[in-house]
Amino acid sequence: MAGLRVHSVLVTGANRGIGLGLVQHFLGMPNPPQWVFAACRAPTGQRAQELRHLASKHCNLVIIPLEVTDPASIKAAAAQVGEHLGGSGLTLLINNAGMVILNALDNETLEDMACVYTTNTIGPLLMGQEFLPLLKKADQGRPGPALSCSKAAIINMSSYTGSIEDLNLFDTAQIVSYRCSKAALNMLTKCQSLRYKEDGILCIALHPGWVQTDMGNMGDTGSQKPPLTVDESVQGMLKVLSSLSEKDTGTFLSWEGKVIPW
Amino acid sequence: MAGLRVHSVLVTGANRGIGLGLVQHFLGMPNPPQWVFAACRAPTGQRAQELRHLASKHCNLVIIPLEVTDPASIKAAAAQVGEHLGGSGLTLLINNAGMVILNALDNETLEDMACVYTTNTIGPLLMGQEFLPLLKKADQGRPGPALSCSKAAIINMSSYTGSIEDLNLFDTAQIVSYRCSKAALNMLTKCQSLRYKEDGILCIALHPGWVQTDMGNMGDTGSQKPPLTVDESVQGMLKVLSSLSEKDTGTFLSWEGKVIPW
Ligand SMILES: NC(=O)c1ccc[n+]([C@@H]2O[C@H](COP(=O)([O-])OP(=O)(O)OC[C@H]3O[C@@H](n4cnc5c(N)ncnc54)[C@H](OP(=O)(O)O)[C@@H]3O)[C@@H](O)[C@H]2O)c1
Ligand SMILES: NC(=O)c1ccc[n+]([C@@H]2O[C@H](COP(=O)([O-])OP(=O)(O)OC[C@H]3O[C@@H](n4cnc5c(N)ncnc54)[C@H](OP(=O)(O)O)[C@@H]3O)[C@@H](O)[C@H]2O)c1
Repeated sequence: MAGLRVHSVLVTGANRGIGLGLVQHFLGMPNPPQWVFAACRAPTGQRAQELRHLASKHCNLVIIPLEVTDPASIKAAAAQVGEHLGGSGLTLLINNAGMVILNALDNETLEDMACVYTTNTIGPLLMGQEFLPLLKKADQGRPGPALSCSKAAIINMSSYTGSIEDLNLFDTAQIVSYRCSKAALNMLTKCQSLRYKEDGILCIALHPGWVQTDMGNMGDTGSQKPPLTVDESVQGMLKVLSSLSEKDTGTFLSWEGKVIPW
Repeated sequence: MAGLRVHSVLVTGANRGIGLGLVQHFLGMPNPPQWVFAACRAPTGQRAQELRHLASKHCNLVIIPLEVTDPASIKAAAAQVGEHLGGSGLTLLINNAGMVILNALDNETLEDMACVYTTNTIGPLLMGQEFLPLLKKADQGRPGPALSCSKAAIINMSSYTGSIEDLNLFDTAQIVSYRCSKAALNMLTKCQSLRYKEDGILCIALHPGWVQTDMGNMGDTGSQKPPLTVDESVQGMLKVLSSLSEKDTGTFLSWEGKVIPW
């Protein structure tokens, strides 16, 4: 992580699972960000207890209410983040919030397809649009190589199950609504990388590995369990982020830094 | 087309453009299908005039009302098709209906993203589910090699712009909602190919080329025009369909039979 010096970061879905792990690791860095924005949809709820506890100990941690499927909520979050940042920009936007519904192809429905797509694909698109001015500002303030995660970047949390080429674990989990949403998120990432390059913003799709979280444990089949702890996954991903440069924008990488086929 | 002997085919979005061209070519074959079901959402409307004219001349052509974003409409269409077929099955389902909205990334909206996805991705999913019993029946009735378009197949009309690997013409047309929907349709096709293999159904994603239709002409930039007529595109695609076998299921092919990268 030596190479990763982040002035400010926003993580969506930060109240549990991988999102919470990311927040904890950013706070624990030798050079922690000046601002860690932990976005979650129910900041006062039961599931944000741990986040509130963290916020009581770290004055650089700000909890931001955010429902990623609601454009008004995203607008309000961007305004709130902008106020905290004053004149400076947002270095890293991590679109981590996501959901899965454990359907087989035969029982997918219009509603489930739409709901998963709205959360996993449209949410990250709207977040990119709304936080673009802050991300642009972050790039402008920073010297150094053209694109990097220390300047300005969007990290979209994708999944290996979104690889069309290597349709992974289809026998165990068809989850077509989820796979379609992540393939589309990969396409969005590629589009963002081309559009936002001129604004100095690096964009990648990142697979966190199969991780022991509420979502990861849903794939637990008894014989197969998620092999990674949140800590292992997050450590790996932060190492990957620290290594990224211009050549990596628009790619699909694993928590170990391996390129995943589309 | 020597190899393509289709007992029955259903084409969605059959009232204009590529869908209408497909219907015309099926009717004009030396061995035309016993049944050509031309599905469109407004069979009595202005835009279905040509289709009604065709139906008045071909007694094997049946116009079916179908709105692909409405599960009840799909159910009713499947029932109507099943009645016509009597005990026999449906050989070919061509999910051709589709839409594009000419947005740039910066002005995509939640509504446009959802609308295009519902039409281009969820529609084909629901069509596959609802017509599965008829497609299964078609396979059961036919001798010959394991999978082919003369036995039972789902053809999803995709687009080269849905290739994540080779982000084609992004400078000219960002159309992120469309690209995401077609990348997701490609994922759906791959999932369908794995799930429906046991039912003897071949599934591919097909790129028709850049074709002179209402949609194709929207990409006309003055200097660049769609090079293909509907006839050329449809002739190419039918030749591709006639050549498909088991090894092709789950692939993404162009109207010339070339494999397109995901
Ligand atoms: N775990 C794995 O093995 C694995 C593998 C591949 C990819 N991923 C991806 O990694 C990301 C994080 O997964 P995870 O395992 O940490 O999942 P998780 O434990 O289920 O947590 C999901 C998080 O997303 C939030 N969220 C869901 N919908 C939201 C919405 N509409 N608005 C705002 N927040 C929302 C949840 O908030 P609430 O608490 O309010 O529900 C929660 O904080 C996801 O994108 C997932 O697809 C995970
Ligand atoms: N033309 C090209 O260059 C090109 C290139 C790549 C891929 N494609 C794909 O090829 C397919 C056909 O394209 P095209 O050029 O023939 O398009 P088009 O001329 O715009 O025709 C689209 C057809 O889809 C129907 N449709 C749209 N939404 C529908 C819905 N919700 N329910 C039922 N029918 C619906 C339309 O019906 P209405 O008349 O009622 O609107 C129309 O029949 C599309 O999937 C498109 O994405 C085309």
